[in-house]
Amino acid sequence: MTSAIADALRLPSGPVDLTAIDPDSAPGFDGKKADGKAALAGMQPELADLQERLWAERTAGSERRVLLVLQGMDTSGKGGVLRHTIGLVDPQGVRITSFKAPTEEERAHDFLWRIEKGLPEAGYIGVFDRSHYEDVLIARVHGLADPDEIERRYGAINEFEARLVDEGFSVLKCMLHISADEQKARLAERLANPEKHWKFNPGDLDERAHWPAYREAYEIALERTGTDIAPWHVVPADKKWFRNLAVGQILLDTLRGLDLQWPTADFDVTAETERLAAEAPVR
Amino acid sequence: MTSAIADALRLPSGPVDLTAIDPDSAPGFDGKKADGKAALAGMQPELADLQERLWAERTAGSERRVLLVLQGMDTSGKGGVLRHTIGLVDPQGVRITSFKAPTEEERAHDFLWRIEKGLPEAGYIGVFDRSHYEDVLIARVHGLADPDEIERRYGAINEFEARLVDEGFSVLKCMLHISADEQKARLAERLANPEKHWKFNPGDLDERAHWPAYREAYEIALERTGTDIAPWHVVPADKKWFRNLAVGQILLDTLRGLDLQWPTADFDVTAETERLAAEAPVR
Repeated sequence: MTSAIADALRLPSGPVDLTAIDPDSAPGFDGKKADGKAALAGMQPELADLQERLWAERTAGSERRVLLVLQGMDTSGKGGVLRHTIGLVDPQGVRITSFKAPTEEERAHDFLWRIEKGLPEAGYIGVFDRSHYEDVLIARVHGLADPDEIERRYGAINEFEARLVDEGFSVLKCMLHISADEQKARLAERLANPEKHWKFNPGDLDERAHWPAYREAYEIALERTGTDIAPWHVVPADKKWFRNLAVGQILLDTLRGLDLQWPTADFDVTAETERLAAEAPVR
Repeated sequence: MTSAIADALRLPSGPVDLTAIDPDSAPGFDGKKADGKAALAGMQPELADLQERLWAERTAGSERRVLLVLQGMDTSGKGGVLRHTIGLVDPQGVRITSFKAPTEEERAHDFLWRIEKGLPEAGYIGVFDRSHYEDVLIARVHGLADPDEIERRYGAINEFEARLVDEGFSVLKCMLHISADEQKARLAERLANPEKHWKFNPGDLDERAHWPAYREAYEIALERTGTDIAPWHVVPADKKWFRNLAVGQILLDTLRGLDLQWPTADFDVTAETERLAAEAPVR
């Protein structure tokens, strides 16, 4: 059983048309901004409980873990999701991996090499801030790899993610879907505020000229790599509060679906309780 | 300028007598539990602001970073500090490293080898959940290394931490100081609650027999490695709320002391603003 939000955002199979999804909408949620913020805050206790169960399971040998992939154009709010949604979870159980432009060493390997190294261990909620999808997005838009190689990568990604699921990963992929106008407003805001200048890069404006090419690259990637075992969710992201809420709900649904149980004691509880009660004074 | 709490907890140089520090006290703080929780929550905006400045500085080439070392007996609340205090900070800027019993590979290297690998990069707040201090604590109590080697390690630690400070680290070390009675109560609680059985290990009870030896090992370590550049704080930890507050205050003081400034733009702000305003329609 999944929530109305997750059901509304999960991408069905078949061709993808991002222009048909309104970035300013809030599918599956009836409330306003204040309701959305309250709903997200209200998830905290259950998220914390389920994360601790996932972590506890690991001590009993479970291999299960979660991988949340965040993709989206600049300013779409990957950082905001990490701060406001992932920030609700005990930081001990979270592993965030940010993928920047690949280094020379990384470029000398297959595109999945650095991804493998960033995978979460058992018991963790791993979050990818950008991911292996950059290798079929920016790589396609800017011709950073041959067309044959780009073509190969869609299949390689599907095989990779299928292997992860076999190994105990829950793979959830969210594309934060922002409009070009909203991005323009957010970039203007960064330029207007000296405290945000460090976030701005003149190259961000150059990239805007490739907006239609990025949209097409996303549509192809979403269609080719949206699978039953590792589905894509397109998260309307012009409303920051809905974006944060939606990713929280998708994560919560995933954790609920794992039916996480507290491990049973691998020692004699009664004997240990008596031993503690009977111990010589310690001071 | 540091706070009353940090001033009260910072260990002066000279011999250390942990029996003289009440684990149930709240030095430097006048309020009760509710006041302490409110004071910690009240730090959140400033902690978040300073952490983001530290992160932003990194983009302008700063090498500065923070390393918070958490040490303490089982149940002293290292995990609680991570959840309640470090959980206040944006998880993107935090790197937590937990040190368990060393692996075979780690034991084949110098004791600082695995520590080096766990150090935070520039811009991060790194937190060590246990640390290189285990190598002069449990190692001393259980004779896991020769006395000569243990003796060598105090000096090696001081040299290591001095190098870190030279490289741009702020090193803050907190010993969570719990009483044997409070530990007993917390272990009993774990045994009484099936949801906490996974946290219990029968070996925890065996370790209690070595309580005086651990205290002595801590006293020696604190005396030998408490330096002006990397001071120890002994944090009374029987009151969970005070423990969380105190570590938060020490972290906040440290960040305040860095006088963190937003980086200035390395591009022409006016020109970029005009370029964005004048761009061709993007859709």
